Amino acid sequence: MIGGDGPHSYLRNSTYQKAAIESVRAKTKEAILAKLNLQTPKFDLNLYKIADFGCSVGSNTFDAVQNIVETVKLKHQREKSKGKNQTHLEFQIFFNDQSNNDFNTLFKTLPPYYLDHQIFACGVPGSFYRRLFPKKSLHIGHASNALVWLSTTPKDICNRNTQAWNKNNILCTNLVDEVEKAYKKQFKKDMGAFIEARAQELLPGGLMIILGLCLPDGVQMIRTWKGVFYDMIGDCLIDMAESGIIKEEKLESFNLPLYFPRFSELKEVIELNGCFSVEIMEEVKHPMEDMPLSDGFIASMHRAAIHGVIEEHFGGGIIDELFDRFSKKSTRDHSIYSKASQKDMQYFILLKRKIDRL
Amino acid sequence: MIGGDGPHSYLRNSTYQKAAIESVRAKTKEAILAKLNLQTPKFDLNLYKIADFGCSVGSNTFDAVQNIVETVKLKHQREKSKGKNQTHLEFQIFFNDQSNNDFNTLFKTLPPYYLDHQIFACGVPGSFYRRLFPKKSLHIGHASNALVWLSTTPKDICNRNTQAWNKNNILCTNLVDEVEKAYKKQFKKDMGAFIEARAQELLPGGLMIILGLCLPDGVQMIRTWKGVFYDMIGDCLIDMAESGIIKEEKLESFNLPLYFPRFSELKEVIELNGCFSVEIMEEVKHPMEDMPLSDGFIASMHRAAIHGVIEEHFGGGIIDELFDRFSKKSTRDHSIYSKASQKDMQYFILLKRKIDRL
Repeated sequence: MIGGDGPHSYLRNSTYQKAAIESVRAKTKEAILAKLNLQTPKFDLNLYKIADFGCSVGSNTFDAVQNIVETVKLKHQREKSKGKNQTHLEFQIFFNDQSNNDFNTLFKTLPPYYLDHQIFACGVPGSFYRRLFPKKSLHIGHASNALVWLSTTPKDICNRNTQAWNKNNILCTNLVDEVEKAYKKQFKKDMGAFIEARAQELLPGGLMIILGLCLPDGVQMIRTWKGVFYDMIGDCLIDMAESGIIKEEKLESFNLPLYFPRFSELKEVIELNGCFSVEIMEEVKHPMEDMPLSDGFIASMHRAAIHGVIEEHFGGGIIDELFDRFSKKSTRDHSIYSKASQKDMQYFILLKRKIDRL
Repeated sequence: MIGGDGPHSYLRNSTYQKAAIESVRAKTKEAILAKLNLQTPKFDLNLYKIADFGCSVGSNTFDAVQNIVETVKLKHQREKSKGKNQTHLEFQIFFNDQSNNDFNTLFKTLPPYYLDHQIFACGVPGSFYRRLFPKKSLHIGHASNALVWLSTTPKDICNRNTQAWNKNNILCTNLVDEVEKAYKKQFKKDMGAFIEARAQELLPGGLMIILGLCLPDGVQMIRTWKGVFYDMIGDCLIDMAESGIIKEEKLESFNLPLYFPRFSELKEVIELNGCFSVEIMEEVKHPMEDMPLSDGFIASMHRAAIHGVIEEHFGGGIIDELFDRFSKKSTRDHSIYSKASQKDMQYFILLKRKIDRL
């Protein structure tokens, strides 16, 4: 993600992520009201600790967290008549992202209610595919559109000498079995590590909310909008290699550490862990439904999202040209859109940390 | 403080602060071993939460915190024979500083042991003169050379129409009663707020370690090394105003938000609060004793420390010239050193949060 608040920054190009959070605001509220049990043993009813995993910067993380905070307050208020006391209700909010996230901008843009002495903000640097918090120290975890990023690109797909070599493609299009297997393996490892880390960090009875994109079972990435767009970015890179702007070998060794799992794969990894009960796992409204699908918007959105990995691999010099080409290609070549005959899927998951682990 | 890792950054110009921490390493260890009571009710013996207030960036905060962590581990180990279990001992470390601190650099330079799954790091943005943590949520607090910074410059000292007007001086030299009163009032307010906030955040039985500079009772700031140096920076600003490089009015409205309290003033504010027992409060070795007192070193040290406030008031354009002048003046004008006939004092304080507040 691009830090700061410049024209290409995540801060100014995260409308998609905003729509994703907005579209589940009511559902999140409803789910917490229904599933959070204030009677859970070992809950400290005066202090709730909430973490947003993969928070990036800007208003999206603040909005998502604030929705959770307001809901917990409401839940307390509703149960007040049953003898609960919410005079001293406090919140400690942990904003997590990689240590190269722009925490400086995040902290400078904290909304004013973080000064009201009841909501305390912290930044937590590090990959969410490992432990980030002490054992049993969180009440609610939240991750929105963060888990499509793998911890690393699967090794074999960049290796010419393996069957999993992904040639000039830049992500898992689901067309080559060996490539798909390599991505799937990495996904299972990463997602498994995420679930295990959260299982240790959440208090028994604690909730984990995960929002993200996946593919319905049987759908191929290359047949979806996202697949088409990423494939188009790959085509632009191929054109640039042919024009000698980037080296062929450099392109061959590049793949996006992005994986859109099938719905059933996601379920399988969560259930394999066994520490959580799956309280809610369902499809929700796709954020793209409310998006202005202009070519400029699509180019900006992808630029803000993958700028970092492109820069890291090819250097910053090619970014402007790559996204100019992408913008033109997607405007010109409208026939390519008809390839997108299948739909990806926005999912909403609410997990509850089981009280006992067997 | 200057962020990043450039030649004038705090990261590269904090030898003084390093020496201050080094000189009390053994004392801190000894004090924690003696005063931390693992039998304290409500202590979670598997998890220690430690905060460094005014951490800035770089190795100083990491060194100070690591010394505390190692000592707590040692304390546990020693009491293991008494039936304690330290298999699952975990630490959550909170690095606090103003929200304009360079947390990005802090997080990128975290020592590798923060990845070992037992020490979890967080950044906490905000002024330590207000609440930063939930009630009773910390075991040990630490502040090293941070409390000389007031939350703001006392208003009246910049106002030509008050008796407290500090004219062309830039800090409290203790020569004008009204100026001293204004600074002292601000200090009492700020230090009182610091102590009250920590009293709420620390668990009963929790420890607060404060290390810093003050003046022995009766000593005047202007008669100490620090006073002489800051006064010399003020003289350079006067010269620059006379040469028309900065405006006279701009200089008149400038004062450093720095105050070196008398030892007794410090004690008075702490005791007034009443929530802490003063377990240790004494003079320790002055860090300057081990410092290379070269002129270049002195200029760099002051530059790294007050760069931010100078830039904020006068703009960044004057910084190089100001510190060039300061460097030359302090090299040339050695007679001025003889003014420094009195000594400031490095103090070490260990407070224990009382169990009951009456």
